[in-house]
Amino acid sequence: MKNTFGNTISVTIFGESHGPSIGCVVDGLPAGLPVDTAVIDRYLEMRRPQGAISTARREPDPYVIESGVRDGHTTGTPVCIRIPNEDTRSADYEKMASIARPSHADYAAFVRYNGANDTRGGGHFSGRITAAVVAAGALLMPALRAKGVLIGTHIAEIAGITDRNLGCGEELTCDLELLAGLDFAVLDADAGMHMQEAIMAAKADADSVGGILETAVTGLPAGIGEPFFDSVEGLLSHALFAIPGIKGIEFGAGFGLAKMRGSEANDPFRYAGGRVVTTSNNAGGINGGLTNGMPILFRCAVRPTPTIGREQETVNFRENTETTLAASGRHDPCIVHRVRAVVDAMTAIVAADLLAQAGKLQ
Amino acid sequence: MKNTFGNTISVTIFGESHGPSIGCVVDGLPAGLPVDTAVIDRYLEMRRPQGAISTARREPDPYVIESGVRDGHTTGTPVCIRIPNEDTRSADYEKMASIARPSHADYAAFVRYNGANDTRGGGHFSGRITAAVVAAGALLMPALRAKGVLIGTHIAEIAGITDRNLGCGEELTCDLELLAGLDFAVLDADAGMHMQEAIMAAKADADSVGGILETAVTGLPAGIGEPFFDSVEGLLSHALFAIPGIKGIEFGAGFGLAKMRGSEANDPFRYAGGRVVTTSNNAGGINGGLTNGMPILFRCAVRPTPTIGREQETVNFRENTETTLAASGRHDPCIVHRVRAVVDAMTAIVAADLLAQAGKLQ
Amino acid sequence: MKNTFGNTISVTIFGESHGPSIGCVVDGLPAGLPVDTAVIDRYLEMRRPQGAISTARREPDPYVIESGVRDGHTTGTPVCIRIPNEDTRSADYEKMASIARPSHADYAAFVRYNGANDTRGGGHFSGRITAAVVAAGALLMPALRAKGVLIGTHIAEIAGITDRNLGCGEELTCDLELLAGLDFAVLDADAGMHMQEAIMAAKADADSVGGILETAVTGLPAGIGEPFFDSVEGLLSHALFAIPGIKGIEFGAGFGLAKMRGSEANDPFRYAGGRVVTTSNNAGGINGGLTNGMPILFRCAVRPTPTIGREQETVNFRENTETTLAASGRHDPCIVHRVRAVVDAMTAIVAADLLAQAGKLQ
Amino acid sequence: MKNTFGNTISVTIFGESHGPSIGCVVDGLPAGLPVDTAVIDRYLEMRRPQGAISTARREPDPYVIESGVRDGHTTGTPVCIRIPNEDTRSADYEKMASIARPSHADYAAFVRYNGANDTRGGGHFSGRITAAVVAAGALLMPALRAKGVLIGTHIAEIAGITDRNLGCGEELTCDLELLAGLDFAVLDADAGMHMQEAIMAAKADADSVGGILETAVTGLPAGIGEPFFDSVEGLLSHALFAIPGIKGIEFGAGFGLAKMRGSEANDPFRYAGGRVVTTSNNAGGINGGLTNGMPILFRCAVRPTPTIGREQETVNFRENTETTLAASGRHDPCIVHRVRAVVDAMTAIVAADLLAQAGKLQ
Repeated sequence: MKNTFGNTISVTIFGESHGPSIGCVVDGLPAGLPVDTAVIDRYLEMRRPQGAISTARREPDPYVIESGVRDGHTTGTPVCIRIPNEDTRSADYEKMASIARPSHADYAAFVRYNGANDTRGGGHFSGRITAAVVAAGALLMPALRAKGVLIGTHIAEIAGITDRNLGCGEELTCDLELLAGLDFAVLDADAGMHMQEAIMAAKADADSVGGILETAVTGLPAGIGEPFFDSVEGLLSHALFAIPGIKGIEFGAGFGLAKMRGSEANDPFRYAGGRVVTTSNNAGGINGGLTNGMPILFRCAVRPTPTIGREQETVNFRENTETTLAASGRHDPCIVHRVRAVVDAMTAIVAADLLAQAGKLQ
Repeated sequence: MKNTFGNTISVTIFGESHGPSIGCVVDGLPAGLPVDTAVIDRYLEMRRPQGAISTARREPDPYVIESGVRDGHTTGTPVCIRIPNEDTRSADYEKMASIARPSHADYAAFVRYNGANDTRGGGHFSGRITAAVVAAGALLMPALRAKGVLIGTHIAEIAGITDRNLGCGEELTCDLELLAGLDFAVLDADAGMHMQEAIMAAKADADSVGGILETAVTGLPAGIGEPFFDSVEGLLSHALFAIPGIKGIEFGAGFGLAKMRGSEANDPFRYAGGRVVTTSNNAGGINGGLTNGMPILFRCAVRPTPTIGREQETVNFRENTETTLAASGRHDPCIVHRVRAVVDAMTAIVAADLLAQAGKLQ
Repeated sequence: MKNTFGNTISVTIFGESHGPSIGCVVDGLPAGLPVDTAVIDRYLEMRRPQGAISTARREPDPYVIESGVRDGHTTGTPVCIRIPNEDTRSADYEKMASIARPSHADYAAFVRYNGANDTRGGGHFSGRITAAVVAAGALLMPALRAKGVLIGTHIAEIAGITDRNLGCGEELTCDLELLAGLDFAVLDADAGMHMQEAIMAAKADADSVGGILETAVTGLPAGIGEPFFDSVEGLLSHALFAIPGIKGIEFGAGFGLAKMRGSEANDPFRYAGGRVVTTSNNAGGINGGLTNGMPILFRCAVRPTPTIGREQETVNFRENTETTLAASGRHDPCIVHRVRAVVDAMTAIVAADLLAQAGKLQ
Repeated sequence: MKNTFGNTISVTIFGESHGPSIGCVVDGLPAGLPVDTAVIDRYLEMRRPQGAISTARREPDPYVIESGVRDGHTTGTPVCIRIPNEDTRSADYEKMASIARPSHADYAAFVRYNGANDTRGGGHFSGRITAAVVAAGALLMPALRAKGVLIGTHIAEIAGITDRNLGCGEELTCDLELLAGLDFAVLDADAGMHMQEAIMAAKADADSVGGILETAVTGLPAGIGEPFFDSVEGLLSHALFAIPGIKGIEFGAGFGLAKMRGSEANDPFRYAGGRVVTTSNNAGGINGGLTNGMPILFRCAVRPTPTIGREQETVNFRENTETTLAASGRHDPCIVHRVRAVVDAMTAIVAADLLAQAGKLQ
């Protein structure tokens, strides 16, 4: 459904980088779910550019909840959240409307839309649109928390520098609470400092860096999801690949499983505290597409920002000529730390939908 | 939509491992597309267990096209392909109905279905169901080929042993044609022999091995797909994670992008033969969720078969006791080479849907 | 979704009149619902041609449940029911493949499918396909009954001859039980006799007659449905217009409301037996798209069978010539009494979906 | 999908009567379609209350196109149209939040949403929401007109007073052009005067009246639609029953077919001007769910406004008591003439979707 995703709870996204507004419509929510604008504010803040390591574009995101919420609770009818666009300098972009920025969608979109798409700032392909996803996901966070579901993402790697691993059991819960308070979401502050240095170094080189985000979801009961097309992996990956810059996803041990034997990869079951658990979690909490009651774990590869100050070879697709391009507008030398809020939010959307499908979000 | 997938062309899957039949309904096909039962036969054969490296269960797959095809062409109404189940030895499985096979869906399904699901042979969670996917995908292959679209998958890695890389340009086309004729799909025959030795070694140890499949799709025009939720990555990953055993997917350079700088990762555009191409293909042919005219490239991580002869710790979820389990029924020490046909087929389903959405499959 | 309908519970239809099989896939069913093949048998029998007033084509409908049911209960995974086609005399139809039968889909389908559709016996447009709908609906009847939901349809009118009205309250329940046992579903046996005489008279004239079916659904709780597009009226009408020959639908007083004043049309609320009821039911049990706890009431207009023995003017759409046509094959002088089973079944599909969406079918 | 409708082109509705805004998101539009704000203005004006025969509530509808349109053309990405709410007097409604207005959704919604819905002015159930539908439909009108598709609705009947019938052939086109310019859409001005007198008489009695709207769509090519669930009748009725107050729909001769014989009801085919036409149009331009190239004709029954000044018996559903109610707020003695714009708009949405599905809206 193009810009709509979800089965029981569906999210529809609209907007273009330099149009009047971007936003989302969240439909299918049970009535009476708690909504907390402070949570929406906080997630939008986590997505916002920060300090020297980000673009200088200010994005204050003064959103409006147009419908579906009253007195801090959902009414059961569609929630529209709208974020007006501000501080848009089209001039930075206008001149590129026919020059394809390498690894951006400019050329593909030109073909897709016969040249009629809004190209200013990437239009509907802009990372800006993810602010609407963040708002939608943050809208759902208090309801998930009320059901015991926590979601958190840390920067597992930037430019080859790695964070420490997420803990297990109780420690995982502590880690998720810790991450909620961080703007640059690393568990190991030293690693975080090195990552930021690497980002600054790339910036100094008019270049950019990528990384890996690792996400955990705790508190989902066993038996959520569907066996075939609507597997937990299928729904999460479908949603997460909507985020610009994500080019890989793996669940549990993921690609590492390819090198294991079955006897290593399998997660033995046992009882702990009266409930079924596994002693390892190489499956990332998902068996046969369904949750097994263990934390959902996955990692997303985030490519380095394609917009860089260095000169690159490319084409003018309206004039059918080869040319070169060096970005002069504002841009991020790294988006990994900002994408983290989008991954959290997108995960919340899918988790809420899965719970709602199972009749467990009321 | 649970067991249905696709926008313009949708595929619905049904069946259980030991029920009367499994099958699929493919809806939304344009009328008049060529259908070739020899192609369906061939893909079902590629998925079938082969020789010593596979399970001894014979799966002859004598399918019936129940509707939607006449005189070698689609009629434009739903195509149902049904594959009767044969040679099912329920006795092998019945005794396990309450003992969770580690990393299988037994426990999660027990919770999901309140114990009412068909547990024989894994029921609807069985890899057997993928034969219906293979039939659906193979149904679409001639129509895709008629539009210049080729799909092929090779075994990039099994048990740490790697195949050579797919070629570029003309060589890629040759590689895809080569793969179509192979039952064990490796480009480097020596590597293939070593992989099969590793499989036999695992079998001798009552264990199993995993691997990585790499897929290429050539001939898709630029501008196919949608910018947000229905990105090419999103649709492919959603469909591919339906295949039992797949736990990771990466497009183009995928997780490798995390370590690159933007200047390395970006794919510069240029003109070749009058059309826009990129000099590298780190994006796997996809920019902003849309095809850019380059080959689609992706890799899937396939876990080692969870069913192994070794004794494993687990639980009896009906009796709430801990126990051990060693598989005695027939099982595969490796499914990577068989999953390859399923990946090809699932890719065909998504590629056909993408083309149809763009009005380019007629 | 073309041949798929439903939100939580979806039904996919496949098949052509003279192909190997027709059938359906019902997905999204909770596990453990009771299934009774005697009920499926009975509904298929109600749809089957009966005696002199129907076509001579025998349709024994020996269906197979291919998946999703075990030991008299749903397993929670897709249920495929397949009905092989038998006794198909293509010769009756082959010669008409390019002559448009008036008020049939032949010409429209020729354009829609570029002439590639299966035209034998109407192909996918044949009333034969409704046997699959009947099977799907009858599959759901025991589960609905277990939740207190009863569905029944009577022939309100054929050829201008009217049945008595459905009763209210307890009497409605009696009427629905009475109808369940009838093959020609009239409450007033005399009216039924006159209707059958009118059908025979039309047959003697090589002509056909139409009528009106009235349906009641009791036992649905208040608050089921959705306010906007997925109103109870919207879902029922969408599904019911799939039945060949239905050209009108009205809920409650329907078109009669157009002549009333608000003070007559409004249904006052009061309490009875501790629950909210209305003293009239002009709204047919639906307010603002939601059930209000009163019986759902609607009427469907069924056109006279378009296939008649009389000579009619028409065109040969392959030769672009005008011509005449008189049907010589087997055909029904009236389908109203047979469509009744299809309306019951389609209503069951929608009612089950509505209950399931509200989490009330488990 | 609750508040979303459509296959290729989908419309999502949001908003509540007294919330900040109502609106819609239209997705799946081809890029480059012409958009004309004057057309949107005009349709919103047609829906707006007019003079003495309508409510005194002023609804100026100063909408904002938030996305998806640039320089008078669609960009190919979602179009959000937002209409801020103004002039809302909640006090009129607040006191009724627990007293069910007869034939309104208050009680059903109370049950559906556990009392958490926004009840002010009917909330999401308000006819106010249809302004968003009108905007969405009017957005599509210029693109439909560019393809030769005209849509128009006249008031066939109010309070038993009937308009003259729509003409055939050329005259139908003239009638549709005539209707476009009218605020009170009758073909016979005298009949219109009598209708307005009947409305005023009902108002004087603190009562309301209903009626019938008749709609024609010309210019749709033959072969549009789908044979089974996505029949033209099914899609139109599903969408139209979303409009508050519509309780019946019939296509072509509709319920009148029930009294005809097949020889009268059938529409003979012939050639005229080189194309296939029918000499009558009892099928309303639809055979087997597909367009046959003739005008689509249908009639909608509109109930009298349930809000009336007369005292009615009802219940207080929070206090479980019986009570009486007489509306004191602003309300319409008749909505038939206003609903006409909503029917036109909803028809445009379905027609555009049908054309787009067939690849004919580009």
